[in-house]
Amino acid sequence: MYQATTDKKWIKDIPDGGILTPKGFKCSGVHAGLRYNKLDLGLIVSETPASCAAVYTTSHFQAAPLVVTQESIAREGVLQAVIVNSACANACTGDQGYRDALKMRELTAAKFGLPEHYVAVASTGVIGEFLQMEKIEAGIAKLAIGNDQEDETNFQTAILTTDLVTKHACYSAEIDGRTVSVGGVAKGSGMIHPNMATMLGFLTTDANISSEALANALKEVTNTTFNQITVDGDTSTNDMVLVMANGEAGNRPLHPEHPEWPVFIELLTESCASLAKQIARDGEGATKLIEISVSGALSDEEARMIGKQIAGSNLVKTAIYGADANWGRIIGAIGQSEASVNANNVDIAFGDITMLKKSTPMAFDEENAREYLMNDKVEIFVNLNLGDGQGMAWGCDLSYDYVKINASYRT
Amino acid sequence: MYQATTDKKWIKDIPDGGILTPKGFKCSGVHAGLRYNKLDLGLIVSETPASCAAVYTTSHFQAAPLVVTQESIAREGVLQAVIVNSACANACTGDQGYRDALKMRELTAAKFGLPEHYVAVASTGVIGEFLQMEKIEAGIAKLAIGNDQEDETNFQTAILTTDLVTKHACYSAEIDGRTVSVGGVAKGSGMIHPNMATMLGFLTTDANISSEALANALKEVTNTTFNQITVDGDTSTNDMVLVMANGEAGNRPLHPEHPEWPVFIELLTESCASLAKQIARDGEGATKLIEISVSGALSDEEARMIGKQIAGSNLVKTAIYGADANWGRIIGAIGQSEASVNANNVDIAFGDITMLKKSTPMAFDEENAREYLMNDKVEIFVNLNLGDGQGMAWGCDLSYDYVKINASYRT
Repeated sequence: MYQATTDKKWIKDIPDGGILTPKGFKCSGVHAGLRYNKLDLGLIVSETPASCAAVYTTSHFQAAPLVVTQESIAREGVLQAVIVNSACANACTGDQGYRDALKMRELTAAKFGLPEHYVAVASTGVIGEFLQMEKIEAGIAKLAIGNDQEDETNFQTAILTTDLVTKHACYSAEIDGRTVSVGGVAKGSGMIHPNMATMLGFLTTDANISSEALANALKEVTNTTFNQITVDGDTSTNDMVLVMANGEAGNRPLHPEHPEWPVFIELLTESCASLAKQIARDGEGATKLIEISVSGALSDEEARMIGKQIAGSNLVKTAIYGADANWGRIIGAIGQSEASVNANNVDIAFGDITMLKKSTPMAFDEENAREYLMNDKVEIFVNLNLGDGQGMAWGCDLSYDYVKINASYRT
Repeated sequence: MYQATTDKKWIKDIPDGGILTPKGFKCSGVHAGLRYNKLDLGLIVSETPASCAAVYTTSHFQAAPLVVTQESIAREGVLQAVIVNSACANACTGDQGYRDALKMRELTAAKFGLPEHYVAVASTGVIGEFLQMEKIEAGIAKLAIGNDQEDETNFQTAILTTDLVTKHACYSAEIDGRTVSVGGVAKGSGMIHPNMATMLGFLTTDANISSEALANALKEVTNTTFNQITVDGDTSTNDMVLVMANGEAGNRPLHPEHPEWPVFIELLTESCASLAKQIARDGEGATKLIEISVSGALSDEEARMIGKQIAGSNLVKTAIYGADANWGRIIGAIGQSEASVNANNVDIAFGDITMLKKSTPMAFDEENAREYLMNDKVEIFVNLNLGDGQGMAWGCDLSYDYVKINASYRT
């Protein structure tokens, strides 16, 4: 289970860090003209070939860029660049969409003198429209990579859609006496119910690690972080999390038997959890981050299932928007889960205000509860009193603005 | 699959009919004071003991009245009365809640001179609060059953919560040369994602049928009707559909081998489908009924799964509220389903406007599409082009008012 950073003494949070904090990475973000006047095309480059791993949406309709990225990675498990556009998802675009994604990869490889299969491609935006390839081509020609804060900010901005804020995270630790950093950038605000995943996340690290070990680490970590957030229960066609590890930290190769493997897993977990929570907090129309901690489940997996069911309940989300301590809706969500539940022995609390103890309603001060629910972060604790399984999930409230944003997304 | 009434020439729709149309039933609705000034306690009585069947919520937290109703039915499969209150769900109320539900049953049985196990109990409203039993007791004392339109309207009204309108349906047909009617009344507006079920539905029929055959029929019919509506993806603790058959029509006993068994199934289907659609249309904050027809699935079950996934998507619901022909969101919902899908061969249409053909976007007139989506009933057609499976689902759009209603339900 993901736990708060403060428990992890050997890990250092780098609040202003991001994908350029690990050694040997550069990036860029430009305006290619896919959006009216916002940056819309971004690139990350590793100075040397990097081990890499990615996880992809489980949607039946994987978008063309995901197909091309999987082809690139399948060749050697190595990448040196990721090209990303916003505004157009290049999803449900058939053969032409696939050819367009290949062309994006080819143009990027040519411009930076890389083999094509060292380039990954990602897109986000409206489904069912074709990429405007002349704009993409001109945009790629404009890309000038650097490692200033401005370059990082430009990349972070270029991948956004309805997001209100950029999202970045970075953590470092000593491994084999060397400083290893993991940095990340993400976008995602709607269609967020990853499995895996419903957003784009790009992580860089200077750790020395094989792509196989990296793939294992990423899969393990996404299950407790990105896959545990939900904004609206809808899984997108385009989403992926991709990590590149260029080895420039100079540690001995990381693998599950390395004594400091757990440190690396935690670095990756902290970075992914931070990005996941930033996405949930920036959910479309959200005014509050909701964090659900479930304990006492039969397994960690069942705890995560229940957490996500609560985070995904429209009725819980609207009640919290209205600061209404309507714990019956949490019962509604738990009751619906396929996880094991003893209906006569459940505890529920908002923050430190207990609502239900052994399935018996507790008297509580409505005004206190209301005040607590006015915070911009609301914590819900559920104890199923069945076993040792625990897990967390994150979501956001459901407001008028969610409806407003989504009633006219394309227009 | 449920099909339009017009295809069923042997079935007669009785637009003003309800639970009193079948012979031998009476009802009542009174103000017991659980709600400020609305009717809040209702009763249906069959003049003679009736075969009966019911389906119940799959929530882990079945409310006390459901437990008591199951105990009543388990004895003989016979009922003669159903007592229902609104305002308080009597759910998550522990032993006291169970005793209160038993007391409701006992008081009703005593007042009408029935064995206790001939009485079913139902409740709907806020979870986690106790019934005000002195009000229930006084309310039961006031109940005076009759078979006028006013009695029927009073019952229909007494069971409502956030519903804006009452819901009733009635169909009749000739079976063994006798007129058999099925009538029904329902409530439900929020926490609607039945499985089975998230609402209350009460049906009466004068058909002669055993409780075993009735149970089979009800299960079959709810799977294609009540279980195919969704308002908000949340399953309630209290919901059930109950049918009483008193045999007063005088037909030979109905069972699956009876030549007119399909006629009875259709009577029940029409009544349940009508009530289900009335619930979806009256979904909290809804401005439109959304009807999804899925064909070409591997099985009817998979078709229904996909239909319900689309009906439940917040992104589809908000787009339709905004009259935005954003079919990419239907792709998002289908993509997420566990049903089989060939991502390269899916057709999607809004009404008769085709958006996607063999997974290729079709040119369409945005203004036409917008105009179609302004209707108060929107039909979505999906063809998976895989097999013969078909099914339907119903939902409603997601509006500002949904948020408004649910941000302060208890206050």
